[in-house]
Amino acid sequence: MADEKKLTSRSEDFSAWYNELVQRAELADYSPTRGSMVIRPWGYGIWELMQRALDDMFKETGHENAYFPLLIPMSFIEREKDHIEGFAPELAVVTQGGGKELEEPYAIRPTSETIIYSMYAKWVQSYRDLPVLMNQWANVMRWEMRTRLFLRTAEFLWQEGHTAHATADEAKEETLLILGIYRTFMEEWMGMPPLTGLKTESEKFAGAVSTYTLEALMQDNKALQAGTSHFLGQNFARQFDLKFQSEEGQEEYAWNTSWGVSTRLVGGLVMTHGDDDGLVLPPRLAPAQVVIVPILRGDDGPVLEKVDEVAARLKEAGVRVRIDARENLSPGAKYYEWERKGVPYRVEIGPRDLEKGSVALARRLTPEGAKRKEFVPEDQAIAEMPGRLEAFQRELGTAALARRDAATVRGVESLEELEEALDGGAGFVFTGWNGDPAVETMVQERTKATPRLIPGDEFRSSEAPTKCVSGEGSSVAEVAWARAY
Amino acid sequence: MADEKKLTSRSEDFSAWYNELVQRAELADYSPTRGSMVIRPWGYGIWELMQRALDDMFKETGHENAYFPLLIPMSFIEREKDHIEGFAPELAVVTQGGGKELEEPYAIRPTSETIIYSMYAKWVQSYRDLPVLMNQWANVMRWEMRTRLFLRTAEFLWQEGHTAHATADEAKEETLLILGIYRTFMEEWMGMPPLTGLKTESEKFAGAVSTYTLEALMQDNKALQAGTSHFLGQNFARQFDLKFQSEEGQEEYAWNTSWGVSTRLVGGLVMTHGDDDGLVLPPRLAPAQVVIVPILRGDDGPVLEKVDEVAARLKEAGVRVRIDARENLSPGAKYYEWERKGVPYRVEIGPRDLEKGSVALARRLTPEGAKRKEFVPEDQAIAEMPGRLEAFQRELGTAALARRDAATVRGVESLEELEEALDGGAGFVFTGWNGDPAVETMVQERTKATPRLIPGDEFRSSEAPTKCVSGEGSSVAEVAWARAY
Repeated sequence: MADEKKLTSRSEDFSAWYNELVQRAELADYSPTRGSMVIRPWGYGIWELMQRALDDMFKETGHENAYFPLLIPMSFIEREKDHIEGFAPELAVVTQGGGKELEEPYAIRPTSETIIYSMYAKWVQSYRDLPVLMNQWANVMRWEMRTRLFLRTAEFLWQEGHTAHATADEAKEETLLILGIYRTFMEEWMGMPPLTGLKTESEKFAGAVSTYTLEALMQDNKALQAGTSHFLGQNFARQFDLKFQSEEGQEEYAWNTSWGVSTRLVGGLVMTHGDDDGLVLPPRLAPAQVVIVPILRGDDGPVLEKVDEVAARLKEAGVRVRIDARENLSPGAKYYEWERKGVPYRVEIGPRDLEKGSVALARRLTPEGAKRKEFVPEDQAIAEMPGRLEAFQRELGTAALARRDAATVRGVESLEELEEALDGGAGFVFTGWNGDPAVETMVQERTKATPRLIPGDEFRSSEAPTKCVSGEGSSVAEVAWARAY
Repeated sequence: MADEKKLTSRSEDFSAWYNELVQRAELADYSPTRGSMVIRPWGYGIWELMQRALDDMFKETGHENAYFPLLIPMSFIEREKDHIEGFAPELAVVTQGGGKELEEPYAIRPTSETIIYSMYAKWVQSYRDLPVLMNQWANVMRWEMRTRLFLRTAEFLWQEGHTAHATADEAKEETLLILGIYRTFMEEWMGMPPLTGLKTESEKFAGAVSTYTLEALMQDNKALQAGTSHFLGQNFARQFDLKFQSEEGQEEYAWNTSWGVSTRLVGGLVMTHGDDDGLVLPPRLAPAQVVIVPILRGDDGPVLEKVDEVAARLKEAGVRVRIDARENLSPGAKYYEWERKGVPYRVEIGPRDLEKGSVALARRLTPEGAKRKEFVPEDQAIAEMPGRLEAFQRELGTAALARRDAATVRGVESLEELEEALDGGAGFVFTGWNGDPAVETMVQERTKATPRLIPGDEFRSSEAPTKCVSGEGSSVAEVAWARAY
């Protein structure tokens, strides 16, 4: 049944809007398993398109997929000191198998560095076996108390890349290569342009030497950590004895990287482009880019025939099309549903359109002042559709970038100013920082903002800050602060 | 490093041959997690091609992918009586989460009927919401004591389809539709022609009304259950209150089906086509259909250029190509490795070939009496390759079918004859059966064979058996027996 109640508006309650949208657009639902969600076909379809795009980029750059065990012996996770400190509070533990208590319990993987590098240690003997460039698409589990659909759930789906290299430089290059792939994906597929840069020491991955991050701004001006790429140095290689014989005959530890993005990206997509009518999908990630709704009045044969024909021609042109010929549901109810689900274009075809040789086109987002519906000759509508979808895609990215820039405040020099900017609705606020973790705590306590990243070259302010935002000492690094998911 | 030791031969020890091949072709490896394996990139590449082919067929027939939680509340699994009886001994149980004992433990899904139908109950109200046709690609866990790589591991990857329908007939039709898809896939992609039919009551899925199965014959004449499609009746719908209002306004329980195939298929592929040199891949499931090995002697520039050009032209023609330009490895060692990994065709290009404008083609399987290597003009080699791969694909399927038929014995009328046939190397032995489960136990104790299936129409003997193989009573159904994995 069509659910005709309007969503809570974003301005009224962004968080309620998000939860309602995710459920009513049938992206996901709560499950009987505490903290876990069900990803419904519409949401999963978006994730499949994300997977395909990323997987293609990983493979083009020489990575291969593999699959490692879900269960990790507890002793493995405990081996890297920072790693276990970071993950211990979030583990789900299997203590029984086949009706018996296990001698050694297993953790459901919260991430797979430990088990993967233990296998690499078995496979790698010589520099000739390097680099190892693998990725896995998998579920992981981090026990969470406060969950939000897609954004924070006990179980989520992700990809985790794990590589081993002969030199530190090569590993660092890999970390940046992946950062670039993620950025391209977020900009060009998601229309969600992120800032990129380094995490501070206190925010980096448990076990990493350094963590690169991608931080995107949502419509409520909160930041979302959208992906990370870690340079692990030799931390895990030492613990798991991942050694190789170098070209010079020396025994050396390998250098590792790991990197991941998750189904959280679906939540980011919602919060970047959704409006008060529901989801708005960038065409490249829309399971259906065009939905065709036949307007049926009496003699339906010719209309349905035309609908099939137009659908076939659009498919031919490379467009993902869905026909909604459900009976017992009014066209209006269908329009409402597909708008809520974010399909970029709707095509309506009825008996009158047949007579005129035209179709009605409705765009999910209407530029201000433009007509909601256009009547376009059939051939023209089909010929123009790929270009219209590209324009739609570009528009979303441009709007998101403009929102991010409009919400960015630079050159802030004191805690008062920082707080004022955030309370005034700023997204990212750039300040100087003296490198002291105590300042991070102080800022967070006062403003609820955290250091999202130390911006990379491209995102740094043209004038480097000289003072720390705390008022104490001079700045050693610029930081972009934001309240975050 | 190339591992030059020959595999144990199939005739000497089929089981040792299989284990060695799987590891040395780098399909999979043992892991530190008891009973779980690592699927390495070459094995995972095969699985990805299997997934793509099946997923396309599921989608063409109206199914959509979704994702349900890994963890299932124990109380859910216990609700369907036969289901819990079947799965209780194999469960892995999570008793701790986030550092605390859980009030209700969770089972890692051994299969997802229970949690999925509990969600369908939430989503389905009316006959208009039916059918629900969903599939998920996921990992599952069944605690196993005796494991074999791909064939029987605690964790494995699979797809599980779950559907809900308004009528029993529609659900039964779905069960058969999927059986047909699986069969087409096994025949046309895997070259592994299965028998299809019904499981006996004692062999059916725990919780099903009836189970259709696909049983393939391996080269050691043991059967492999390669896939199943279950008609679940209203068993789960009743337990999970999956009801709908019918067109006539009545409240009714929905009718369910479930169906799955797993990474076990990779093991089936190995045991169907592998030979004493290693794996032999049907081209449709080969991560690389052609490997190009440059023969380098001194001035390598022109040879490597030609290799790139030929690779590009083959890709253009729709062929999956890999170039093996590794240094420090002799051509011979490369040939050996790619033969072991089962790549259908090898192309060698050296300075002499350049002069002649030809390439050397080596086929993974050489018809008896034919030459191991052919020298073919470059243009011709490229033009012919798609056709050559198709022929290779067909040959494998034809050979497997011939082996199955040659190993099938029909019209057997007594236990003695059955035992004799099996000991004489028969694969499937067809007999009459009086329908009594005691006969199944008796046959198994005496011969180690189990009833693989009650053959479908096409596989039944032209003359229906009249007597039960036990000598007691008349036959109510023909049964195909085999020793099985």
